[in-house]
Amino acid sequence: MSLLDRTLEAIRPLDEAAMTRARARQDRLTKPSGSLGRLEELSVQVAGITGQARPKIGRKAVIVCAGDHGVAAHGVSAYPQEVTAQMVENFLRGGAAINVLARHVGARVIVVDVGVLSDFAPRPNLVVKKVARGTADITRGSAMTKDQAIQAVEVGIVVLEEEVSRGLSLVATGDMGIGNTTPSSAIAATVCNRPVAEVTGAGTGIGEQQLTHKVGIIEKALSANRPDPSAPLDVLAKVGGFEIGAIAGVILGAAAHRIPAVIDGFISTAGALIAAGLAPLVRDYAIAPHTSVEAGHGVMLDHLGLTPFLDVDFRLGEGTGAALVITLVEAACKILDEMATFESAGVSDGR
Amino acid sequence: MSLLDRTLEAIRPLDEAAMTRARARQDRLTKPSGSLGRLEELSVQVAGITGQARPKIGRKAVIVCAGDHGVAAHGVSAYPQEVTAQMVENFLRGGAAINVLARHVGARVIVVDVGVLSDFAPRPNLVVKKVARGTADITRGSAMTKDQAIQAVEVGIVVLEEEVSRGLSLVATGDMGIGNTTPSSAIAATVCNRPVAEVTGAGTGIGEQQLTHKVGIIEKALSANRPDPSAPLDVLAKVGGFEIGAIAGVILGAAAHRIPAVIDGFISTAGALIAAGLAPLVRDYAIAPHTSVEAGHGVMLDHLGLTPFLDVDFRLGEGTGAALVITLVEAACKILDEMATFESAGVSDGR
Repeated sequence: MSLLDRTLEAIRPLDEAAMTRARARQDRLTKPSGSLGRLEELSVQVAGITGQARPKIGRKAVIVCAGDHGVAAHGVSAYPQEVTAQMVENFLRGGAAINVLARHVGARVIVVDVGVLSDFAPRPNLVVKKVARGTADITRGSAMTKDQAIQAVEVGIVVLEEEVSRGLSLVATGDMGIGNTTPSSAIAATVCNRPVAEVTGAGTGIGEQQLTHKVGIIEKALSANRPDPSAPLDVLAKVGGFEIGAIAGVILGAAAHRIPAVIDGFISTAGALIAAGLAPLVRDYAIAPHTSVEAGHGVMLDHLGLTPFLDVDFRLGEGTGAALVITLVEAACKILDEMATFESAGVSDGR
Repeated sequence: MSLLDRTLEAIRPLDEAAMTRARARQDRLTKPSGSLGRLEELSVQVAGITGQARPKIGRKAVIVCAGDHGVAAHGVSAYPQEVTAQMVENFLRGGAAINVLARHVGARVIVVDVGVLSDFAPRPNLVVKKVARGTADITRGSAMTKDQAIQAVEVGIVVLEEEVSRGLSLVATGDMGIGNTTPSSAIAATVCNRPVAEVTGAGTGIGEQQLTHKVGIIEKALSANRPDPSAPLDVLAKVGGFEIGAIAGVILGAAAHRIPAVIDGFISTAGALIAAGLAPLVRDYAIAPHTSVEAGHGVMLDHLGLTPFLDVDFRLGEGTGAALVITLVEAACKILDEMATFESAGVSDGR
């Protein structure tokens, strides 16, 4: 059996017994029952994910998957394609937004080259697992072969499992790839069955005319490829990206290993759509940070049944939104674990 | 001149020069300009507050103000009045939600007895500055005298200044006082000029019948006292609470000392309404964490022109929402200070 198939088979429903015990404890903590709202629910979700009634969050990682996109040649981004590699170097030197935010929340950053055009010197936090040097031009045919799509997803699973072996309580996904809102919008339009214009935004900051051009490019890609919405690997192969496949793999691997996965913005959520298509249960293992400014992100989150926690108007990716929510997940678990109960604190529970 | 008058006079507009420099730096960091949305704005606000173009957040404190309320005798809360003192003890032992969240974000907790009915043994993080043992019954007359209202606000200023002398970069407000959503709703109805029913909620969790009763009690208090919406100290004296006055003082003191003030939920925002009535500029120094489940909180935030950051459905108070936002403020300042620029990282800025 392939790594992907083994992973899909390992994904099980949340642990209801652990959730029931977590809920019961929340109701005995020194606060009106339910008064910490979604933080209480989050702690119960993590209990169900981990199977522990009082889960503790230890080591955390942000896995940033990078790849290039043939479609970038069509001028769909405000930045030149070499910025993908330049930003990978920036991640490895610790100067990017995700580095600052990951340091702030105490998470390590792992950068995965799943398909960047150029090469990198070896570095401690860099994992090179290139499927190919960038995807093909999706306006003329598939982004990648079906085998490459599986390979990209398995890169994500392998990296996740390497991190599990180093110790991992919580994972966040991130992305880098100039042009990657274009395949993400193509995936959203296909999987969520929406018109391209409804799920396509300005990405890194293109103007109105360039946005119209981008919508046209995506429509062309969809009519050239006709991806099958019911076949996630077909969608990924035809209009996806290597880093999007790897993100799907990280999310699947996390669910298989019963680890909460904080997904990030638009591109990571496209990965989550692929992952949830392959294994619908992963939605119970996923946590959504914020609704991106990027048009269509809300549609994708609704499709997945996820409600974000932050109102911050981000449109950066890299894992930046996810990093900020790591600290909320930790806070939720600490509330469940560390607060006094009415009995232990001698506080009247008002009954 | 009184401490209050001196404090009001010390409050100045934000430092525009520092904000301009912060904004210019944000635009040169290795990310599309504006792509970190409200986190960028937050860093610029903190620059304006502190007068530093690259502000650093050092020591942080949550000041939890506690008081009792004569109106509690009317059965407006789901909890008995002794829970105020029991929860103060819980705060001092570190077992409450605010202790867990403050530890999580690295902030110290200071509990201020501004008007609890009973007495406490001295403890390191307890400040006893009782104005009186609980407010009077607001359905029959003023909650407190005008002098006591000023005294309550000055307690907040004094405690804030004590914390400044111990080192303070950021302050969050919190509250404890069984029955204190009732005076908070009375303040909101008066200052925001809304019907009582529109700004009155279930507080700690009362039923529908008890809520109708609570609305009636607040309406009775307003017609008995006729607070003057244009005179914040009149509103505080007639229908407020000692801890609400002290929270107003913390916010005023923070603005006077150019320290960002993260206000908490419903009760803290009532304090902010009093503070902003006395010195409208404090709104520029305030940061709002979340919209409470408590009806009317959104109306109060709109009145203050504040937009919250978290969607967490809290209705607890104590400073819990504010504590979680402390970490966002720190993240915002670190982004501004620690990220590489396009020049320093050798990344093409796409121009």
